[in-house]
Amino acid sequence: MPLLKAVLIGAGHIADSNHIPALKQLSDRVDVVAVCSRDLIKARALADKHGIPSAFDNTTDMYRQCAPDLVVICTPNNLHFPQAMEAMEHGCHVFCEKPPAISAQNARDMANLAAQKGLTLAYNFQLRQTSEWSLLTRCQTDGLMGDIYHIKAHFLRRRGIPGWGYFTDKSMQGGGALMDLGVHVLDLALCALGYPVPDQVVGSTYDFIGRAGGKGLMGTWDPATFGVEDAAMAYLTFPDKTSIMLSASFALNTQADIDRNLEIFGRKGGANLFPFALHTELAGELADVHFPYLEEVDIQLKNTAAFLDACAGKPSNVCTAEQGAILQEVVERIYQSAAS
Amino acid sequence: MPLLKAVLIGAGHIADSNHIPALKQLSDRVDVVAVCSRDLIKARALADKHGIPSAFDNTTDMYRQCAPDLVVICTPNNLHFPQAMEAMEHGCHVFCEKPPAISAQNARDMANLAAQKGLTLAYNFQLRQTSEWSLLTRCQTDGLMGDIYHIKAHFLRRRGIPGWGYFTDKSMQGGGALMDLGVHVLDLALCALGYPVPDQVVGSTYDFIGRAGGKGLMGTWDPATFGVEDAAMAYLTFPDKTSIMLSASFALNTQADIDRNLEIFGRKGGANLFPFALHTELAGELADVHFPYLEEVDIQLKNTAAFLDACAGKPSNVCTAEQGAILQEVVERIYQSAAS
Amino acid sequence: MPLLKAVLIGAGHIADSNHIPALKQLSDRVDVVAVCSRDLIKARALADKHGIPSAFDNTTDMYRQCAPDLVVICTPNNLHFPQAMEAMEHGCHVFCEKPPAISAQNARDMANLAAQKGLTLAYNFQLRQTSEWSLLTRCQTDGLMGDIYHIKAHFLRRRGIPGWGYFTDKSMQGGGALMDLGVHVLDLALCALGYPVPDQVVGSTYDFIGRAGGKGLMGTWDPATFGVEDAAMAYLTFPDKTSIMLSASFALNTQADIDRNLEIFGRKGGANLFPFALHTELAGELADVHFPYLEEVDIQLKNTAAFLDACAGKPSNVCTAEQGAILQEVVERIYQSAAS
Amino acid sequence: MPLLKAVLIGAGHIADSNHIPALKQLSDRVDVVAVCSRDLIKARALADKHGIPSAFDNTTDMYRQCAPDLVVICTPNNLHFPQAMEAMEHGCHVFCEKPPAISAQNARDMANLAAQKGLTLAYNFQLRQTSEWSLLTRCQTDGLMGDIYHIKAHFLRRRGIPGWGYFTDKSMQGGGALMDLGVHVLDLALCALGYPVPDQVVGSTYDFIGRAGGKGLMGTWDPATFGVEDAAMAYLTFPDKTSIMLSASFALNTQADIDRNLEIFGRKGGANLFPFALHTELAGELADVHFPYLEEVDIQLKNTAAFLDACAGKPSNVCTAEQGAILQEVVERIYQSAAS
Amino acid sequence: MPLLKAVLIGAGHIADSNHIPALKQLSDRVDVVAVCSRDLIKARALADKHGIPSAFDNTTDMYRQCAPDLVVICTPNNLHFPQAMEAMEHGCHVFCEKPPAISAQNARDMANLAAQKGLTLAYNFQLRQTSEWSLLTRCQTDGLMGDIYHIKAHFLRRRGIPGWGYFTDKSMQGGGALMDLGVHVLDLALCALGYPVPDQVVGSTYDFIGRAGGKGLMGTWDPATFGVEDAAMAYLTFPDKTSIMLSASFALNTQADIDRNLEIFGRKGGANLFPFALHTELAGELADVHFPYLEEVDIQLKNTAAFLDACAGKPSNVCTAEQGAILQEVVERIYQSAAS
Amino acid sequence: MPLLKAVLIGAGHIADSNHIPALKQLSDRVDVVAVCSRDLIKARALADKHGIPSAFDNTTDMYRQCAPDLVVICTPNNLHFPQAMEAMEHGCHVFCEKPPAISAQNARDMANLAAQKGLTLAYNFQLRQTSEWSLLTRCQTDGLMGDIYHIKAHFLRRRGIPGWGYFTDKSMQGGGALMDLGVHVLDLALCALGYPVPDQVVGSTYDFIGRAGGKGLMGTWDPATFGVEDAAMAYLTFPDKTSIMLSASFALNTQADIDRNLEIFGRKGGANLFPFALHTELAGELADVHFPYLEEVDIQLKNTAAFLDACAGKPSNVCTAEQGAILQEVVERIYQSAAS
Repeated sequence: MPLLKAVLIGAGHIADSNHIPALKQLSDRVDVVAVCSRDLIKARALADKHGIPSAFDNTTDMYRQCAPDLVVICTPNNLHFPQAMEAMEHGCHVFCEKPPAISAQNARDMANLAAQKGLTLAYNFQLRQTSEWSLLTRCQTDGLMGDIYHIKAHFLRRRGIPGWGYFTDKSMQGGGALMDLGVHVLDLALCALGYPVPDQVVGSTYDFIGRAGGKGLMGTWDPATFGVEDAAMAYLTFPDKTSIMLSASFALNTQADIDRNLEIFGRKGGANLFPFALHTELAGELADVHFPYLEEVDIQLKNTAAFLDACAGKPSNVCTAEQGAILQEVVERIYQSAAS
Repeated sequence: MPLLKAVLIGAGHIADSNHIPALKQLSDRVDVVAVCSRDLIKARALADKHGIPSAFDNTTDMYRQCAPDLVVICTPNNLHFPQAMEAMEHGCHVFCEKPPAISAQNARDMANLAAQKGLTLAYNFQLRQTSEWSLLTRCQTDGLMGDIYHIKAHFLRRRGIPGWGYFTDKSMQGGGALMDLGVHVLDLALCALGYPVPDQVVGSTYDFIGRAGGKGLMGTWDPATFGVEDAAMAYLTFPDKTSIMLSASFALNTQADIDRNLEIFGRKGGANLFPFALHTELAGELADVHFPYLEEVDIQLKNTAAFLDACAGKPSNVCTAEQGAILQEVVERIYQSAAS
Repeated sequence: MPLLKAVLIGAGHIADSNHIPALKQLSDRVDVVAVCSRDLIKARALADKHGIPSAFDNTTDMYRQCAPDLVVICTPNNLHFPQAMEAMEHGCHVFCEKPPAISAQNARDMANLAAQKGLTLAYNFQLRQTSEWSLLTRCQTDGLMGDIYHIKAHFLRRRGIPGWGYFTDKSMQGGGALMDLGVHVLDLALCALGYPVPDQVVGSTYDFIGRAGGKGLMGTWDPATFGVEDAAMAYLTFPDKTSIMLSASFALNTQADIDRNLEIFGRKGGANLFPFALHTELAGELADVHFPYLEEVDIQLKNTAAFLDACAGKPSNVCTAEQGAILQEVVERIYQSAAS
Repeated sequence: MPLLKAVLIGAGHIADSNHIPALKQLSDRVDVVAVCSRDLIKARALADKHGIPSAFDNTTDMYRQCAPDLVVICTPNNLHFPQAMEAMEHGCHVFCEKPPAISAQNARDMANLAAQKGLTLAYNFQLRQTSEWSLLTRCQTDGLMGDIYHIKAHFLRRRGIPGWGYFTDKSMQGGGALMDLGVHVLDLALCALGYPVPDQVVGSTYDFIGRAGGKGLMGTWDPATFGVEDAAMAYLTFPDKTSIMLSASFALNTQADIDRNLEIFGRKGGANLFPFALHTELAGELADVHFPYLEEVDIQLKNTAAFLDACAGKPSNVCTAEQGAILQEVVERIYQSAAS
Repeated sequence: MPLLKAVLIGAGHIADSNHIPALKQLSDRVDVVAVCSRDLIKARALADKHGIPSAFDNTTDMYRQCAPDLVVICTPNNLHFPQAMEAMEHGCHVFCEKPPAISAQNARDMANLAAQKGLTLAYNFQLRQTSEWSLLTRCQTDGLMGDIYHIKAHFLRRRGIPGWGYFTDKSMQGGGALMDLGVHVLDLALCALGYPVPDQVVGSTYDFIGRAGGKGLMGTWDPATFGVEDAAMAYLTFPDKTSIMLSASFALNTQADIDRNLEIFGRKGGANLFPFALHTELAGELADVHFPYLEEVDIQLKNTAAFLDACAGKPSNVCTAEQGAILQEVVERIYQSAAS
Repeated sequence: MPLLKAVLIGAGHIADSNHIPALKQLSDRVDVVAVCSRDLIKARALADKHGIPSAFDNTTDMYRQCAPDLVVICTPNNLHFPQAMEAMEHGCHVFCEKPPAISAQNARDMANLAAQKGLTLAYNFQLRQTSEWSLLTRCQTDGLMGDIYHIKAHFLRRRGIPGWGYFTDKSMQGGGALMDLGVHVLDLALCALGYPVPDQVVGSTYDFIGRAGGKGLMGTWDPATFGVEDAAMAYLTFPDKTSIMLSASFALNTQADIDRNLEIFGRKGGANLFPFALHTELAGELADVHFPYLEEVDIQLKNTAAFLDACAGKPSNVCTAEQGAILQEVVERIYQSAAS
């Protein structure tokens, strides 16, 4: 089977430390031929570092010269939509960083185009590849959970406003803690329920700490230009009466530096995801089950491989274009509820 | 100052172990003159046990013979409304067990009558008297919290469906985990925000475990007659954009036997209520403050005293008739949302 | 159904604190009519303390006057045999303290007579009634263990040579740590395997610390009259290739004051008994299962009830006469191996 | 003093990571001149990696060309015997990996030839060089233990069947968990007692988990070709009435991933080896002694040096040919007992 | 041997809960015949409670009517001197509460009179009877400590200003934390060194928290009348170059509610007293020795018995009149140093 | 601004691992031009390792050829005085390792010359740059401590006599544990009080363990040449009645390998330095404040920068010449008290 030709758009940290190493480890399936960035010097440097032949500062040249089979998009959120659409217009599969886009309509259009073109568009929610998530899925399959009816999902940082990049710029990122952190656990929660579209969405967003400034645990941020929410909370209900409680924060007056977890409640058993524990009844008694030897996995490598599986038409648990559109709609409805 | 004459309606556990001992310790302010119960034998036994002169099996005789100044209502939830209305019609102050009633309209009528008659009607939410709540209030007053904008409140039992009484009978109790447990932490959460009326209320209720049966940690329940929710979750938003996340359960597949807490997030500091901790910035650093020597208090005694203060027109932090009406409305809106 | 008439032989601690309270709680099934002891004053005092009508200093009078249905034997080990035989000759069921006897032949004769007379002879191994053992049994039944092939059983005290009674007198007790402590865990281990008769038995006994003296944690013992083993270890193999490792000590230079446990290894899962934990594979991963809410049970009450069930021909997990004979044979073979 | 000329037979992991680095650090006493392996490429690569001059694919050439003074044998267990015999026939001292051989007779023949030739034959039981074992020995010498009379020794893995090499091939290894792991703790236990020959040996072996397959913690094994025991238990008694309980497993349904320990019981004190603790009486009280600052030692380096000491006729605690023969006999008797 | 006739002066808590119960348990050696207090009602009530025949409100009558053999003094510190002198003038042995007196001269005079009269005067420092202190003494005797050269002694409370009695009244108590708490650990420290008279004494006292008020953990104190030190620190050196560091507080901004300990440093070993641990070298390694099973003792009973032993001329470790005089001199020199 | 020219005197570990790396990181402010050591080979090697141009074996040549602006002195304690004096005579600022000197007079002369010449002489007490000390200072400034009145400072090693260098040579080092370790915590304690000159100084020194030998945790020392104190304790009082308790040891029979801490007691709050905790009253309750996210800092880099700030006339918290003279006087008075 011939190798797929891949290009990356965006030459930042996530390309350098996540996507390129994963693609390189999958060199029996994919050949990385170019890096494209508005900043040619960055693109060139990254290409050289990883032994990638070409570097471009515009996609036009890149598509013409490389004719890639697939495109990995690692740019700010507001560029996901135009770049993914352009890539699909060139007949490329697309592996796009999360979140899908900065509006629900964009994500919907992206999904529609992918469907129309018969292309694979997928989003890089790597937590789906953790040992904990694999185990949760296995517990569901093996009937240890029973039907799931409620999920509490949170991804909270005490003072983790990133001090670099565009994370506090709403026009580029589309939002703050919810867009950057909340989507990870929201994606998992939706997965556990079968990715339904919610009935009701109610939510709140706050920016008090972000706009006041203070001690930073992930670099220092500028309160004056802080334009996104530092915390978002929401409640989702679904047609089958299941529900999700969601919390995400860049900054919140809580104890732990960082706290990321899902509590998943089913009729037979409940699970705590990080660290994994199963709470159920066994042998007629309430039982707590721990799994002490879960494997450490390279979640980016597994997710990139899952994307390649999807491109090849094989079963894959990568986040699909359709799921991305649903998730983006949920995010937008949370922001709308908070603003109303 | 002459002693107030008090009577109790209801001769169950809560009268015996909570209200009567508290009233007896406050014998310089109140004189317990009668116990009234549909079951005269129970009423008589309880009166004798505590040295209370009279016992009745109907309120008509009781009001005629005793002419009480105040009435303590310790009956099933569905009786709170008729008994409180009757008491106020007799010109009595009323100290009523929680929850206020089984419908919002009842609680509203009760509040209106109290206002109209100039009587004190109060509800026995004793957690307001814990050292932890006093300290939270003091932290708010001392400016250690800043404006509070979000609260996570939960009161969860893993398998704590009470195996006695009417707890699983909807017609008598009006509901399950939310009515019995959730109202305690909801009352505190509303207090922390100034008892506003919510804008939006969305919620869910479940009864899977209750109807399936299983291991009980508070006696054994009968799945066949289980008629209430075993879990309720809700999200409340308020006109000033503050919000509350609420969870309550009699049964849920979680780890702890029982878990009751409020996490209260303010602009300057956040607090964890049980056990109490304050998370803030101090001397330019993120700081966690613990208070190792909080006093053990008799919360029933303090709450009964607070009710007597209210009767006497003194400042009091007891749950007022108006607050009870708001809380009951919230509860009803949660049930309505869950049913819709 | 008429009440069974019960008498106790022996008026010591075990009668006073274990058997009589249990029998009294079972007053709907059994009526305790007499206590018999060589020391009439002790017998009288014990009978009075518990409201038992008669006291005797010889069994002849007792049998003649009381005509009991069942006899509970609470005397030193060397008396179990003659007293049980006499009781059965009088047509009585017998509930005998552990160990069955001080020789294998005695225990075999006792079992034979019980079988011949169609009477219930049972031994008071109460650990069979612990929540942990019930759970182990349930795990076996539910297929969570798989076939069990090896058991490590121990009951070790660091310096727990009893400073009272006849525990160090070989002629009365027949042995030391193995007779007093080891038999408890040996009985459970044999139960878990189906009470097979071993192929090979090899063992060792020691008395170095007992004869040297030292710090006592259960009273002070006299090294000069110390006549039993302070420690016994053994290995048992069975025809189906299963095996048991057994250790018991009154005194051993180990860390814990007291350490009593069984580790039970099966093909599918292994269990640790005290505290209970199950080690197995679940959902494709190695799993440790804990049961945090095991019930506290009155093991004497349950064991006495189990004996009464056996007398009534109902299913019962009490230690039978036949099992007692097998266990006593194992004990004797351990002593023989150690002495050879 | 001239340097001894050393050669290694076997070019696997143990040669590469243990023996050669140790020999190289002892370059003032020994000169490594060759590596010999059936696979010349492996031999050459290993020699080059460590700067060793010669590589051979047969011992004949090697002995002729190198005339070594000592041979280090790092091959599968079944080759220890022929290679050690050949080496001694060439007048070489032999440092042989554990276990000594795959039959008791082989190990006996090896010891006899060493004695006859006046050569040093020793086995690489490196745990003798741990700080814990040195301390145990010192405690014995200083009289803190008193005479030792019982030892519990175990080396248990929960799912540690090696997924590489020949560990599950009975013809090459001679056995499984006992041959690979059990011998380490058995050697120490025998040392503590003065390396006596046992009176009685009874044991059991199992292979249920190995043949059923499952989760592996040390690579994945093939249940179909699993030909050794996954667990072995044994009891040894000695002419002076001392005894040893031994357990070893590649796979057992227990909690810890790996658990290796000796509990050593003496008349005055008892010791736990890993981690080291002494349990005794001091100042008239029961005392637990911990030694918080034991030195980390390079046990291979110390054991190789001990072998060289033995070659030079100096005092040494390396495992001797005679001890190896006794140990191998014990192992064989355990297998025989298990098979009978 | 005839019983000694004892009387108590002082009818407060320490008499009621410590001295009388101890004396009553020693009824084979001593007969308590009277209680004497300025407040006859209190004296009478206490006497009745414990079955003591007589009660007095003046010592004159008491001595005349009772002719006691020994007197137990349980009054405020300033009365120890006159009452002890009077008792000895009446030929009585004296068992006096700590501290000996409120001035060094008083304590010296008391010791002199005792010596002159040949009477036993002793002080009730009960910590000398703890298992920990007995063990320390035994470790010294057994040579496990070596010569002791430095001791750190402290008795610190965070907010433990007693809210009752005369503890903050300097005229009655002579001082605060040092007089009440510090003397306990100072007495032990001096004992460990052989009760030498110090060369140099330098110290400091503070009263900032006591005079400022605040949260109380042992009742509430009145800052306005707070007349003693809330903290005292001192350093003592002795002619043989040994030294003591001493700290005592009623109130200090430290973490623990209460912290009482001695660290005792010797040439061979060091000991921590509460909880007891020995730090030494054993078997060539640094060793920490713990004694997990120290006996719980009734230290008042043992100290009263030790006093009676002293009266009978038997060996006794009770604090002697001479030791009390030395201790009181040290206390006075600390206060003088602090004031200079 | 032109770069300052720096030279180092002394080519040992502290120069190599602390001073040169710090100076190199500050290359925008300082240029290291030479290393000077009596041993030219060492000087040359160190210079080459760090890319420093010149190496000298005498200061005369060094001053003539390099004309440095500042000198860093990293030699044994007895050379600090002559080398610092010479440096200042050459008009150089001096950054001198701690302690300042081996006599109070030397340190006083050094301070006087610095003042007279208008040069910066500073000592390298880097603990002043720890996050903990910065936070303590900030707490003082923010009024969280109140006036500080007592400090307990200790720096204790159990068996940490350095096995290398001159640490046990009194003529070169001037002393032992106090000179090497005690000065660090003494400097901080004096800082917290404003660096007052004490009223009274009383102290003790010991050398029992050092002269006896034993297990070493920082290399092995020679008891025969051990010429310094292995432990020193002292008490200091100041004109304003504040006080310091000081302990330092190379060897002491205590539990922890190493224990370094200051407990600082103020009127409002007390602080524990390592790890940092604040103990105070907040919201009317006793409160313990922890700061979980203190920054890890390069304390040598910060201290060298602070020295350069001082040279440039900027505010700096480096230990000044005057403070060094006071500290050295305290050390000398402790030794004098111990010797008297």
